[in-house]
Amino acid sequence: MEPTLDVVGVGNAIVDVIVTVPESFIDEHDLVKGAMTLIDAERATTLYAAMPPGIEASGGSAANTAVGVASLGGSAAYLGKVRNDQLGDVFAHDLRAAGVAFDVSPALVGDPTARCLIQVTPDAERTMNTFLGISAFLDPADIDDAVVESGRITYCEGYLYDTDEAKAAIHHAMDVARAAGRLVSITLSDSFCVDRHRDEWLDLLADKVDLVFANEAEIGSLFLTDDFEAASRQITDLVPMAALTRSAKGSVIVTPDERIEVGASSIERVVDATGAGDLYASGFLYGLARGASLAHCAELGSIAAGEIISHIGARPHVALAGLVAGQ
Amino acid sequence: MEPTLDVVGVGNAIVDVIVTVPESFIDEHDLVKGAMTLIDAERATTLYAAMPPGIEASGGSAANTAVGVASLGGSAAYLGKVRNDQLGDVFAHDLRAAGVAFDVSPALVGDPTARCLIQVTPDAERTMNTFLGISAFLDPADIDDAVVESGRITYCEGYLYDTDEAKAAIHHAMDVARAAGRLVSITLSDSFCVDRHRDEWLDLLADKVDLVFANEAEIGSLFLTDDFEAASRQITDLVPMAALTRSAKGSVIVTPDERIEVGASSIERVVDATGAGDLYASGFLYGLARGASLAHCAELGSIAAGEIISHIGARPHVALAGLVAGQ
Repeated sequence: MEPTLDVVGVGNAIVDVIVTVPESFIDEHDLVKGAMTLIDAERATTLYAAMPPGIEASGGSAANTAVGVASLGGSAAYLGKVRNDQLGDVFAHDLRAAGVAFDVSPALVGDPTARCLIQVTPDAERTMNTFLGISAFLDPADIDDAVVESGRITYCEGYLYDTDEAKAAIHHAMDVARAAGRLVSITLSDSFCVDRHRDEWLDLLADKVDLVFANEAEIGSLFLTDDFEAASRQITDLVPMAALTRSAKGSVIVTPDERIEVGASSIERVVDATGAGDLYASGFLYGLARGASLAHCAELGSIAAGEIISHIGARPHVALAGLVAGQ
Repeated sequence: MEPTLDVVGVGNAIVDVIVTVPESFIDEHDLVKGAMTLIDAERATTLYAAMPPGIEASGGSAANTAVGVASLGGSAAYLGKVRNDQLGDVFAHDLRAAGVAFDVSPALVGDPTARCLIQVTPDAERTMNTFLGISAFLDPADIDDAVVESGRITYCEGYLYDTDEAKAAIHHAMDVARAAGRLVSITLSDSFCVDRHRDEWLDLLADKVDLVFANEAEIGSLFLTDDFEAASRQITDLVPMAALTRSAKGSVIVTPDERIEVGASSIERVVDATGAGDLYASGFLYGLARGASLAHCAELGSIAAGEIISHIGARPHVALAGLVAGQ
């Protein structure tokens, strides 16, 4: 059967709680700046109480990516777990309203829908603290094989590796995709996340992955090196293709035969880095699913990332299709 | 006992769900543009499903006003009703994080926390559809007399008149405030709301209110006239003071002896009118509580309203105290 969707995203279904804070807030509350830290319910309550007034907006790395694909004019589905609570309703609404297919049944019992407490500092960096809630209980039974098989590319979050259920779900999704002859991609998500799963991921990449997304810190953590050039060569021993992002320096696409450098979009003012990697993946995956050259895939990634960092929040404020028209 | 707070707000405790829509959305879904329409749970579900992805932010007219007072450097408390659910937690957090005292116990049973589905059109007008939920069940027992007595000014939403419980609560709050020798103020809230309660409000204003806030449509609706000048004279027969807002034309303060016109703040681009009246009231009430002249009260109102309409959402993005310093 021919695939009918461009991208199927698999990830932690999360609602973001976004506040802007002075730099001092990060130190005062022992936050790990620029990283994603997992927190329990108690810490979430304490940290939230200390935060200034915020706004809530749907998030989740792979969900942001799926929304970006739809915003570019592509077709996408999402697999992730929410509770039947108010934030779960918001998450599901925002995905579907963005045109992303989302049919995983909400859990009727258990932890609440996940939330990520995001502090945006004046330098536009985002510091994330995630209470995984029910999202961590995504399990293989939540992965609809037919949905995975319907997508040209399956895109998984490395973050899912933080719990056993979700790790099993990611493996199941990858196995189904491979058996159907689909492309399997993963993002390494966060350098601390790489640190937690390095050995397993080296095997996973070699065994099941066609395309990996990583930023400089993540690929460096994977190979325990500060040498980006060396890491970008090493990764080609494991996977046929890697898209490595370097913030303002743009991205580098490497395959065993090629190395392509593409610049970042020029942005008047970077407001909030949240979602930059997620939306880069949107553009790249949309291009790849539609048969674009690797250089063009990276350019589409830069444009999508450029839109997202120009405002607060990790979902596009305008239709990305309009930004890439004629590109 | 001397009052210890500047303002005590009483209102419907609501979380806003804000989306931007094209003009056509308003007609397609039979919305009453620029107004606040009450909707039931079923309509809320249907309308939400039709809306594009949005953001959630704490709202509620008098709550926005209380936050504005705190942002100006004043002291404020709020009385309103939420459920013990996720949106209720968000509402309470955002008020307290803004420095507003909020100690009404969340309801443990009953309808969920209220939400207002807000459509912002390209002309910056906001169209509001409110599912009142548990907020409508604010009753006299929720009004802590000591809190009301602690405020120099009690500020009530006309919106509260839409249910019997909340109407009884507003009357109780006004009676307590008057008995303690405090100033009683009310906003007429919405011209359709005025239409629903005109006769009762004419009595209410004459009997219990010292200061009324209204825009042109509301004061016109109260006296069933299109003649703003005539309405602005009539209101002084009922109350000692009225602050009448006229959007870009600024505001007019009328008392039996005075008529003061003050211009609006000049804004580069009006983005979202949501909260303009609420924040005007913040500035005016803060000035009045601190003994400013009526003209200066109106200027403070213009500055606070000017900040709020320059961005999406009805809570300040910067400390208003900084904007009015030296004014």
